[in-house]
Order: sequence, then structure tokens, then C-alpha cells
Amino acid sequence: MRGLTPAWGPESAEGWLDSYLSAAAVLDTLRTYEGPCDAVVMAGFGEHGREGVRELMDVPVVDITEAAAHLACLLGRRYGVVTTLERSCGQIEDSLDTAGVGRNCAAVVGTGLGVLELGDDRRTEEAFVAAAERAVAAGAEVLVLGCAGMTGLQRAVGEKLGLPVVDGVGAAVKLAESLVTLGLTTSRAGSYAKPLPKRRGWGRPAE
Amino acid sequence: MRGLTPAWGPESAEGWLDSYLSAAAVLDTLRTYEGPCDAVVMAGFGEHGREGVRELMDVPVVDITEAAAHLACLLGRRYGVVTTLERSCGQIEDSLDTAGVGRNCAAVVGTGLGVLELGDDRRTEEAFVAAAERAVAAGAEVLVLGCAGMTGLQRAVGEKLGLPVVDGVGAAVKLAESLVTLGLTTSRAGSYAKPLPKRRGWGRPAE
Amino acid sequence: MRGLTPAWGPESAEGWLDSYLSAAAVLDTLRTYEGPCDAVVMAGFGEHGREGVRELMDVPVVDITEAAAHLACLLGRRYGVVTTLERSCGQIEDSLDTAGVGRNCAAVVGTGLGVLELGDDRRTEEAFVAAAERAVAAGAEVLVLGCAGMTGLQRAVGEKLGLPVVDGVGAAVKLAESLVTLGLTTSRAGSYAKPLPKRRGWGRPAE
Amino acid sequence: MRGLTPAWGPESAEGWLDSYLSAAAVLDTLRTYEGPCDAVVMAGFGEHGREGVRELMDVPVVDITEAAAHLACLLGRRYGVVTTLERSCGQIEDSLDTAGVGRNCAAVVGTGLGVLELGDDRRTEEAFVAAAERAVAAGAEVLVLGCAGMTGLQRAVGEKLGLPVVDGVGAAVKLAESLVTLGLTTSRAGSYAKPLPKRRGWGRPAE
Amino acid sequence: MRGLTPAWGPESAEGWLDSYLSAAAVLDTLRTYEGPCDAVVMAGFGEHGREGVRELMDVPVVDITEAAAHLACLLGRRYGVVTTLERSCGQIEDSLDTAGVGRNCAAVVGTGLGVLELGDDRRTEEAFVAAAERAVAAGAEVLVLGCAGMTGLQRAVGEKLGLPVVDGVGAAVKLAESLVTLGLTTSRAGSYAKPLPKRRGWGRPAE
Amino acid sequence: MRGLTPAWGPESAEGWLDSYLSAAAVLDTLRTYEGPCDAVVMAGFGEHGREGVRELMDVPVVDITEAAAHLACLLGRRYGVVTTLERSCGQIEDSLDTAGVGRNCAAVVGTGLGVLELGDDRRTEEAFVAAAERAVAAGAEVLVLGCAGMTGLQRAVGEKLGLPVVDGVGAAVKLAESLVTLGLTTSRAGSYAKPLPKRRGWGRPAE
Repeated sequence: MRGLTPAWGPESAEGWLDSYLSAAAVLDTLRTYEGPCDAVVMAGFGEHGREGVRELMDVPVVDITEAAAHLACLLGRRYGVVTTLERSCGQIEDSLDTAGVGRNCAAVVGTGLGVLELGDDRRTEEAFVAAAERAVAAGAEVLVLGCAGMTGLQRAVGEKLGLPVVDGVGAAVKLAESLVTLGLTTSRAGSYAKPLPKRRGWGRPAE
Repeated sequence: MRGLTPAWGPESAEGWLDSYLSAAAVLDTLRTYEGPCDAVVMAGFGEHGREGVRELMDVPVVDITEAAAHLACLLGRRYGVVTTLERSCGQIEDSLDTAGVGRNCAAVVGTGLGVLELGDDRRTEEAFVAAAERAVAAGAEVLVLGCAGMTGLQRAVGEKLGLPVVDGVGAAVKLAESLVTLGLTTSRAGSYAKPLPKRRGWGRPAE
Repeated sequence: MRGLTPAWGPESAEGWLDSYLSAAAVLDTLRTYEGPCDAVVMAGFGEHGREGVRELMDVPVVDITEAAAHLACLLGRRYGVVTTLERSCGQIEDSLDTAGVGRNCAAVVGTGLGVLELGDDRRTEEAFVAAAERAVAAGAEVLVLGCAGMTGLQRAVGEKLGLPVVDGVGAAVKLAESLVTLGLTTSRAGSYAKPLPKRRGWGRPAE
Repeated sequence: MRGLTPAWGPESAEGWLDSYLSAAAVLDTLRTYEGPCDAVVMAGFGEHGREGVRELMDVPVVDITEAAAHLACLLGRRYGVVTTLERSCGQIEDSLDTAGVGRNCAAVVGTGLGVLELGDDRRTEEAFVAAAERAVAAGAEVLVLGCAGMTGLQRAVGEKLGLPVVDGVGAAVKLAESLVTLGLTTSRAGSYAKPLPKRRGWGRPAE
Repeated sequence: MRGLTPAWGPESAEGWLDSYLSAAAVLDTLRTYEGPCDAVVMAGFGEHGREGVRELMDVPVVDITEAAAHLACLLGRRYGVVTTLERSCGQIEDSLDTAGVGRNCAAVVGTGLGVLELGDDRRTEEAFVAAAERAVAAGAEVLVLGCAGMTGLQRAVGEKLGLPVVDGVGAAVKLAESLVTLGLTTSRAGSYAKPLPKRRGWGRPAE
Repeated sequence: MRGLTPAWGPESAEGWLDSYLSAAAVLDTLRTYEGPCDAVVMAGFGEHGREGVRELMDVPVVDITEAAAHLACLLGRRYGVVTTLERSCGQIEDSLDTAGVGRNCAAVVGTGLGVLELGDDRRTEEAFVAAAERAVAAGAEVLVLGCAGMTGLQRAVGEKLGLPVVDGVGAAVKLAESLVTLGLTTSRAGSYAKPLPKRRGWGRPAE
């Protein structure tokens, strides 16, 4: 497994502007990537771009937002997502809806912590547990880590809450492996046909 | 992987009566099963029972109906299901809805073939392709084999249709493995708490 | 009106496993019942099986869950259901959804009392009223007794709450009588065709 | 049972203007009616006014649109409505939605016949059967007569179609009787509180 | 712009009976209006009748309920409506749903003030702000004045809340002007065809 | 009114990759634009980015996709969108859904013409009318030009179809003017807060 970080875009994605900028940067990174690749895992929780990557790549593409939700649906009747800032909640709800897994989402709640504030594990755990309790009150029986920067917390917070907690990165890797093993990849019929050949500029031309 | 067939129930499940009878028989089989078990895959497409098995077992439980839909959502914007008799379509729709993956289902269509008529591969393939075309006209970009008895056809019909075709059995095995690897199992909070201790009779008492 | 209790199944139904087991036992009871019968009322609130009974019987079939909701819709813009254990709420929600009457349900709430704890009327009434207030806060203008074991409480709790309270058993009997009088019974087109002739085992074979 | 016809309003209701005018005339008729009354059946299919009548009257109020749909839901997984002019279809869909029974409606279709053209039974039957076939193709397993002027046709068209056909007038009478027998009437909490005392003019003042 | 007040109907509209009566009176006023008219703005928030006026008039018709919601959708991801009495909330929800703009409505809440109690600006503002906070807690990012009698408060309450507040009357006037400028008016295809010629009585005949 | 075209991005947007790339380029154009600006109209039908622009700008932002739908809802009970390639239909559906105006959309259909093939008016009109008939068959009573490149055709195709046809560009300009006149702009509460200050690269760094 090889991690790629775009050479441009926002240093972290919080909000819609960051998310759209990041989507373009991710697409640019992948279209110019020359290494071998069996599948793509997109590791920006709630961020845009997965449909574009599906058009671009011949291999399976799994986004951690949808991946976490798919597995969470198998573990309880309703799930909840705990993310960073409140401003990201709506974006995540839209992402779950269009992925087709929004129905069993009881709540998306914020911890109030920014992406770059997740370094302090104890503080993050506490904020996660407090936010998770609001999701549980709304009906969640399973929780999802709503940011790739939270990966690694699932065991600790799961024990505190007494609930399964799904990490989207792990979920997406497993789903991508599953698709590869089963010989399945994105349909080219309809929505995710190959991008049409045309002129495209990837960033402001040098002046 | 070990296959279990209930010692009682219908010889095949086509319709709601068969499905409910089968659900009880599957539950009885599992509650009395004494072998080792890391996860349960339920292989009756569109059949009832998965929530009861989740209550009963401590290991992850994946139903092939939901499993196929979860993977299909990753492969196209809308998916379709091709099943056996038309009478089963509504049951499958309800199953997808409650599993939380009904939103992106464009259509559930029948081939007109009964479960026990699936033996003739050529005839089944033809019937599948004809029915699949109706699903594609309704917007499906990915197809799902809507009966465990169709397992094995995915490659042949996928090639004819030029579309990815998901076999629920393979999908469920991969999802179950994923959950096991990730250390995840059913939430006990809320819906899927352990069954309460009480007297239960599993079939008509001897007279 | 003749009451039938299955000769097997759970002594009470609380949760999905009980509900599926009960569905099979009810189907077995009805398929072997030889008395006269104008209609079937299924008296397990939120329990599975009604679609299977519709396949089996030529007479109208009414489940108390849907019946209570149908009448409640006529009495206020939104209704609420007060049931026994919280674990049953999700099952009831799914049952209302598939019956086509979930839209105007404001909330399904639990009293925390098990089915076999409903004997003490005063305690049950108090628990009902407390839970009902949560449903009213969620928008309910009418309430439904969410367990056949609560039948008889509708007048007392209705007076305390100042709201109409629907008992599903009474509602289902009236709806069944209505269908019989109007000469209507289950459609055989599509979903509820007669069960196909095949071998079926109703409970574990004697060893 | 006593039939009341408003002393004013449209001679038949086809479209929204007629429906709103009719609603006001029906309310005026009921507020000035002095006879005994156990329940009100509103016999304008798809017409407005039922919520206002619920505010006005202390007895149960049942509209034939919702009544037919409630019973149809008990007879098949999806129902269809066959009405007069195509222009009424949307109004009926809205009426079913707000009544909380729209989910299982597969289609509302028109025969192309106006309300006052329903006199010729043979022609109406033929038009009904032709339109019903479109509803069946859309998934309807049960049909509803979508106009009070069609009452009486249910047996003939039901036989031709091999499907149960629900007459809203009969359905509403039975539902109203059921509510009366069960001692239930409209909730005064929330939406359907009594109209506030105030000045109201019921029609253009004499000049 | 010319304001028309019906010569009959309720002195204010609070509840369904008032709303239906008002709809007929508004239709009567417009069908007998002989002045010039480029567009119709219907200024009863949450009141019935817009579809009937669309049938009647050849010019564009905009209702303040839908107008406020359309603009609110452009200003935030979710909006809330603050209206007069709680009894009107359901009616407004239904109006937004059928207008096609209910999805992004987070809440409709009441201030407890009747239409004719809105004269005291300070009291109304305080009640509005208190109710608005409940809508914000439910997710509203933009607010709508839920009664034409509140027009003029938008600036004051907007400043207190730090949120955009939409007045339906202003919104509807702007939308009506937009349609006129663009040369657009109501479609005659399907739902809003011209009323059929027939006898109609507009109010109780003189005795 | 001043038209801005991004200095980078795709030469036309057809599909998700183009749309995400275009969204970033539009954001870059606007963040570096130094002229006066009362409102922003985003003229890429069905394209991403509007929420990001709302975060970025202090003035009102209106996207032609949502604008056309908002006005279309005022002109008929259901509307349809006719766009360029079939591959864009799903993207438009998602855009309408998240904008909160998807409910009354009867269909989004493609003409099969690419964005850069719209130059031949006669051919485009014919393709539009043919596609529009499919939307009308699905229930549309009003149509929307589903590409900014179709602007100008509304009168001609409207006459041929006998239906109102909404051009999104004109609609968005009018809605933007309306918001400006009413003193309304995007809410900063919740979803569309200002972008956080952070490092962001807008395109591949020079090597």
C-alpha cells in the first residue's frame, strides 16, 4: 500500500472550499501517477472527488466516508459519525446520501476540534466520547471515526463507549481488497464513463 | 468455510411464507451449532432473519442481499438486482431498504425462473441478460445476482452485458472477512441485544 | 372470534429472533387450522409474518401494528407508538414503513417494561404516560398501544394524556370486519401469490 | 346515513380551483348542519378540506381518498388509483402523501373521462380497465376507484382485472363506523384544535 | 403593486378551516377582479389555494410560503420557519412539501402568538428570537418569517440572531417580477390546466 | 454584469472529473478577482462548487442549476431537465437533491449532444424537443435548459413544446438580483462559514 499526498491543495480540508480544491489536487495526483496500482483508497473523510476518480481510474475506487458507512450498516441498525468541526457535518451528510448509505445514519456530530488539532490523543478521545454520546442519543448503535486523522482511536473510544467503532481507512482498504479479489471494478456504463479527451489545465498557468 | 443447511424449513425459498419459515430454521440451526465460527454468512437472497442472527451470535453476520448491494454501490451510481420469480422482487426491495442500501437501487427485476430451475446455465444466462436489460433501462449501471443459486454466472453475464455483476455470496464472504480482520462485530446497544432468556419451542411439539 | 396461540415459539416476543420464530409458529398454526375462518387478525405488535399469512390464507389478514397506525392516521396529523422494551422500537419502525404507514409516525418509544411485566396496570399506566410524553414532544397528536398486552389501557391513559389512544387489537378486528363486509381479500397478483407446492419441514425433525 | 350536498360550490370537482371552492362549501354545509351526526364521510375523491372538517367537528371524519388507500394497503404490497381526468392525478398524489399513505401507491392514472361523463357504465368500465393496466404495469396489486362517481363498478372491474378493487365510499363508511364503535375521535392536540372564535364570512356579502 | 383583500372569508387565517375558507375567498376575489395584473402574489403564509389560482390566472402566481423557502435555500444549507401559533406548523410543513422545497427545512416552529397579536413589535421580536433559537438548534442556518403580519421584522431579528431572515412577501414580489421579466408563466400542461367551464356557486345562495 | 472564465480547468465540463476540476478553477478565479461584485452567478449547469463559493464570497451566490429548478417549481407541479450527454444526468440529479429542489423533478434526460456540439441551433432544438418528450412522459409540466450553452433556445423550444422553458442563466441572474435588492446574503452560521486561514496551493507547483 502506497500513500500519495497531492503536491498542491489545502494543508487540511475543513469545509467545502478546501474539499473542492482537494478533489482537483487528488485527481491531478492520480492522473500523473505512474506506479502500479490495484485500487485507490481516498482518505479524506467527507471530501469530494470520488466520482471523478472513478471516471479516471480503471481500478476500483473506495472513499473512506462511504466505506465506513457500508461496514457500519452491517453492525447495527443505525450508525453515527463523529467528525472534527461542526461545519463539516453537512458535507458528510451529503456525501453519505449520494453514496446511497445515508438512510441508516442517525446523526453526524462534530467534536469542535480542527483536523490539525487531533494530535493530542487524550483530548481527542474525550471530545470524541462526548460527541458520540449525542449520536447515541439520536439512535446510533455503531460509530464511525469521521476523519482520517482519528485513525487509531477506534479501539480506545470503542471500549469507553461499549460500541463498535469503524475507522474509515481500515474499512476502505478492506473493501478495496474485496473488490480486487472478486475481480470487480467501476462500471463504465452511464455515470462513470472515461473522461472525454479534451484540453484541461491543472492549476493556474505560469505567468 | 463451512456450509450449513437447516434440517428443516422449505426446500427452496420463494415468497414470504418460505422466507419466514426459513428464517426460523436458520436460527435453530445456528443456535444449536457447536463448531467454531468466526462469522456467519447468510446465503438466502432477500430472505428474512439477519437481525435475529445478529442478536444470537457474537460474531459478525452478513447477509448476501445487503452484501451485494454494499459492493454494488461502490461500482456505479445505481445498481439493479436480477432475481428468480417476480413474486420475490418486493421482498428484496424491503430487505434492501431496511439494510439501508435501497436508495441507489434502480430496479429489482425477475427472470421468471424458480430457484430450482436454475440448473440449466444457458437458459439462466439468457433469462438473466433479458431481465438485466430492463434494469439497465431503469438506470442500473451495475448488476447483482439476486439468488445464491446463480453464483458462478457473474463472469459470463457480465461479459455479455459489459457491466460489473456482483455475486452476493462472494461479496458477503469478503465483507465478513473484512469485519473479522478489523476486529468488528455486531453492536449490542439497542436493536441487536442478546435474546432474553425465556422458554422457546423450535417446531411443533411431539404429540 | 377465536383466539389461537401457536403450540410452539417463544413465550413472548421481544426482539428479532423471537419475532422470526413466532412468525414461523403462527404460519404453522394457521396452515394446520381446520376451523372456519372469515379473517385473520395477527396480534403480535411489530412482529413479522403478515405477508406470509397473506400468501397462505384466502381470507383478509390484518396485523395489529398496521391496523393501529391506519386508524391513528385518521385521528391526527402525526401519531406515536409506545411499546415495551427499547429494543423493539426499530422493529416496529420497520414494520410501519413496509406497511406503508410510517410517514406520519412521529416517534416509537419504549416504556422499559418487558411483555411479561405488563400485569401491574398502575405501573404500566405510569410508564406509558411517561413514555407518551416523549412521543408528544416529538410531534405525536395520537398514540398507539405498542403491545397486545397493553389492550384495555387505552381509556385510562387516553384520559390522563387528553389524547386519543388506539389499541391495535380493536383496530385490527374492525378493519378485518370491514374487509369481510366489503367482500375484499388479499390480491393474488404479484407479491402475495399462493405459496408454491414444495416440501417444507415445520420444526426440527424427530431424531 | 344521510347524504349532504353543499348548497353552493362547483357542480363537480375537477382540478384545484373546484376542489378549494368545494372545501369551503362543504365546511359551510357542516357548520350549519343541525341534525344528529356520529361521523362525517367526505365523498370527494382527492378533494381538499378534511383537516378543516376535523377542526370543526367533534365526531370522526374520514375522507374517501385516504380511506380507500388505508384498506388497499391491507390487500397488496402496492396499490394504484384510477381516476377521471389526468389533471386530477397530482392532486390525488398530494392528498395521499399528506394523509400518510402515499408510500405504497404505485401510480395514480386517469381514464380521460370527466366526472359528469361517468354515467355510461360500459364506457366507464372499459376506460377503467385500460387505465388500470397502466397502474398494474407500474406495480399495483390492488386498485382504488378514484372518484365517488365510480362507486358500484368495483365488482365488475375487479372481475375483469382479477384484482381487488376498493371503493372509497364503502371504505370510508366502514372506517368511520370502526372509529365510532371504538370510541375514537379526532385529537384536539396540535393540528386539529377547534377553530378559534372570530368573524368569518361564508361567501360574497350581498351588495 | 395593488393589494386585494377578499370581501369575505376569515378575518385572519389560523388553522385549516380558516385556510380553506380563505382559499375560496381569494379565488373569488381574483376571478372577479377586473384591473390590470402582471402577476399574483399570495400573501397568506402556509395557506391553501395557490394551485387553484394558477389554474385561474394567465399570469405568474407566487405564494409567500414557497417564495421564502426558495430564497432561503440559496442562503444556507438548512432553513427554519418561525410562525404564529403551533397549530399552523403542520400546515406550513405540508405546504413546503408540496411546493417541492421541504427537504432543506430543518424545522417549523411557533411563537405562540396569534396573527392579530403581532402588533406589539417588541413582544413579537422577543417571541420570534426565542422560537428561532429552537429552529437553529434543529439545524437552521437561515430563518423565514412565517406570517405576512411579521413583515418588517426581518432586519431587527436578523441582527439579533446574526442570521439572514427572509420575508416571504418581499421574496414573492421579487420572484413574481423575475418570472414576468423572463416571460415565464404557469404551464397549462397537466396539473394547472384552465378550470373547466361549469356552474359554480361562490357562497351560500340568498334565501 | 461581468463574465469571468477561469484561466485553467477543462475547456468544457462533461462528467465528474471535469466538474471537480472546474470547481477548483472557479474558486481560484473568484478568490483572486479584484473587481467590484454584488453577487456571483455560477454558470456551469450541474457542476460542483457552489457551497465553496458561498464560503469564499460575502455576496450572494446563485448556481444556474438550482436557480432554474427554483423558478420551474413555481410554474408547474413537476419539472424536467434536458441536458447534453447522458453521463451528466446523475450529476445534475445529485445537484438538485442537495440544493433541496429535487422532489418535484420528474426526470433529467440527455440529448446525446456534447457541450461543444451545441453550436448548430436547429440540430440542438430537434434533439432538445425529442428529449423533452421523454421528460413530459415522465410527468414534467415545465422544462429546464440543462446547459448554459443552450441559453437562447428557451423561446423556440418552448413554442414547439407548448410549455414554459426555463433558462438557468436568466433565472440565476434574477435570483441574484432579488437577493441583492432584499439585502440578503449567505448565512455564516454552520455550513458556509468563512474558509479557515491556512496554506493552500492552487495548482501544481512549478518544478
